[in-house]
Amino acid sequence: MPKLKTMTLEWTGDSVVFVDQRKLPLEEVYVRCTTHEETFAAIKDMIVRGAPAIGASAAFGYVLGAKEFDGNLNSDEGIRYMESVKERLASSRPTAVNLFWALDRMHKKFLNRLSSENIIDILEEEALTIAHEDIEVNKAIGKYGAELLRDGDTVLTHCNAGALATVDYGTALGVIRAAVEAGKKISVYADETRPYLQGARLTAWELMKDGIDVTLISDNMAGWVMSQGKINAVVVGADRIAANGDVANKIGTYSVAVLAQRHGIPFYVAAPLSTIDLLTPTGKEIPIEERSHKEITHVQGMQVAPNNVKCYNPAFDVTPWNLITGIITEKGVVRPPYDVTLKKLFD
Amino acid sequence: MPKLKTMTLEWTGDSVVFVDQRKLPLEEVYVRCTTHEETFAAIKDMIVRGAPAIGASAAFGYVLGAKEFDGNLNSDEGIRYMESVKERLASSRPTAVNLFWALDRMHKKFLNRLSSENIIDILEEEALTIAHEDIEVNKAIGKYGAELLRDGDTVLTHCNAGALATVDYGTALGVIRAAVEAGKKISVYADETRPYLQGARLTAWELMKDGIDVTLISDNMAGWVMSQGKINAVVVGADRIAANGDVANKIGTYSVAVLAQRHGIPFYVAAPLSTIDLLTPTGKEIPIEERSHKEITHVQGMQVAPNNVKCYNPAFDVTPWNLITGIITEKGVVRPPYDVTLKKLFD
Repeated sequence: MPKLKTMTLEWTGDSVVFVDQRKLPLEEVYVRCTTHEETFAAIKDMIVRGAPAIGASAAFGYVLGAKEFDGNLNSDEGIRYMESVKERLASSRPTAVNLFWALDRMHKKFLNRLSSENIIDILEEEALTIAHEDIEVNKAIGKYGAELLRDGDTVLTHCNAGALATVDYGTALGVIRAAVEAGKKISVYADETRPYLQGARLTAWELMKDGIDVTLISDNMAGWVMSQGKINAVVVGADRIAANGDVANKIGTYSVAVLAQRHGIPFYVAAPLSTIDLLTPTGKEIPIEERSHKEITHVQGMQVAPNNVKCYNPAFDVTPWNLITGIITEKGVVRPPYDVTLKKLFD
Repeated sequence: MPKLKTMTLEWTGDSVVFVDQRKLPLEEVYVRCTTHEETFAAIKDMIVRGAPAIGASAAFGYVLGAKEFDGNLNSDEGIRYMESVKERLASSRPTAVNLFWALDRMHKKFLNRLSSENIIDILEEEALTIAHEDIEVNKAIGKYGAELLRDGDTVLTHCNAGALATVDYGTALGVIRAAVEAGKKISVYADETRPYLQGARLTAWELMKDGIDVTLISDNMAGWVMSQGKINAVVVGADRIAANGDVANKIGTYSVAVLAQRHGIPFYVAAPLSTIDLLTPTGKEIPIEERSHKEITHVQGMQVAPNNVKCYNPAFDVTPWNLITGIITEKGVVRPPYDVTLKKLFD
């Protein structure tokens, strides 16, 4: 009997099961993780991806870690062990701050309640709360974001900030879903988002499933589509938002933002408060993950470039705050000056 | 005994042989065309591509058409037939103007000399002249362009405007080759150039063969790479240049130009005079080819997007003249106002 089940993940009580997002949409393969190490690998290998989704996934991985411990968690050894579980999960990916946020929240709960007999139940409850809150948060983001879209608008999105990037509903795609649910006709252009093709494989698939009009383009077409007047708004997700409003998101987001500014198209970032990192002053301090060159030289395992070609494969880029029209959160839409407005969200 | 043989094509006297650019760099397969219809198909299916290369290819296809004719070319029927050969070859692709330029040149030669007994030899000579001129033109473009690059510069290029896009040497890559030959250390970032991956498959391959330092990136990384200060100049080719300096080139070129402007990076277009179309006043009048959706949904035959997803696949875009720092031709580098400077090149 699952305690939580969405498109992205299922928590069964003793395992977390992911749809393997590397194989979508052609194959629907599920991967069951029964240890924190398996959960670490699922995040690192991008079986599950998307900042909010990996936050919740890591929380479940933390619970699995606690369950694995063969001894008294309420001991120096137990605390050191849970510290190592937290560190291991945190090392899976460097950029999305939700990962660290969820793990910190789990670990704080653990330290506060470790004398409780039912500490594992308490941790499981906390992870489920994080997951359920994420869904509620996305619906709130959707509600606020939907007000920014007009009936008949066409929205460009990059990567997948959809149900599959979260526990459910999505951030950027949650905004589109909420607008559609409010009765507006919304069309979407989806950047395919090389190298990992989250737009082609996940965003197009999700939106088609929901019956929302979507047109797939390669990333380098976004500017031309904008110049033809086809786009009314850009909505993307975020992996980390610095205190000044700089946004780390999937590689290519920065280019889309520059192009949107040139064409006078509003550029919105949809993200929960757990993505905002007030401890990181600006985008310059956000670590940018570099991934395997094979993601560039191979597409779905098929080689498309010469042997031994040199590559550069940053997984994210930083969009400076002054290219961002508004940041859509579960507490409302904030606008510049972000160094003031973001901080206020946490009051 | 070949009468002309380069990396791109070979003219044997009774056939034109192309390296199949769809299969490079993993396979080196050659396709022999013995009729104008086979040459038409080779251009349409992108076995050979690149504006100058398809110009010369069409010229050889025209010669093959003349050889196929079973009758007297110097007759109403012969003239009508050669007209149809020209039209057929011209219909292979709509955007690159070199195609029409080369066919017009061949047809004019035909009409001027059709009473000659050795008209086929004359046509063959003309096609070979077009091809050899292209190589000389590219070397002249390279010489002028090389002066714009400094020792130690890193150049970003998009698509393949290399030896494989021309009869030999290349336009944009000719500039890089000439700078290297002049003793300058030049590094290159190559956009992979979805959907057809000419950058990954052809540009990276060509430059590696020549021992020129090249780093492959996906298209959506160009902006981020520029923002990190890694790029000193952009050099691309062109498929058609309008009288006002607007440039049609591979899809994504426009985005690169917008990004270059934002970062204060000079953006150069390298192209022969045969790419300049003074009869097309602005980019708005340039027809933009739309190609099969399968190029987006499949990579090298492998499906990467949901079944039946809607796509948009323009093969080219138009970069407005005011984003272009200079146009490098075989007669020198011209700068705005292009409506004046381009016309002067033809005086």
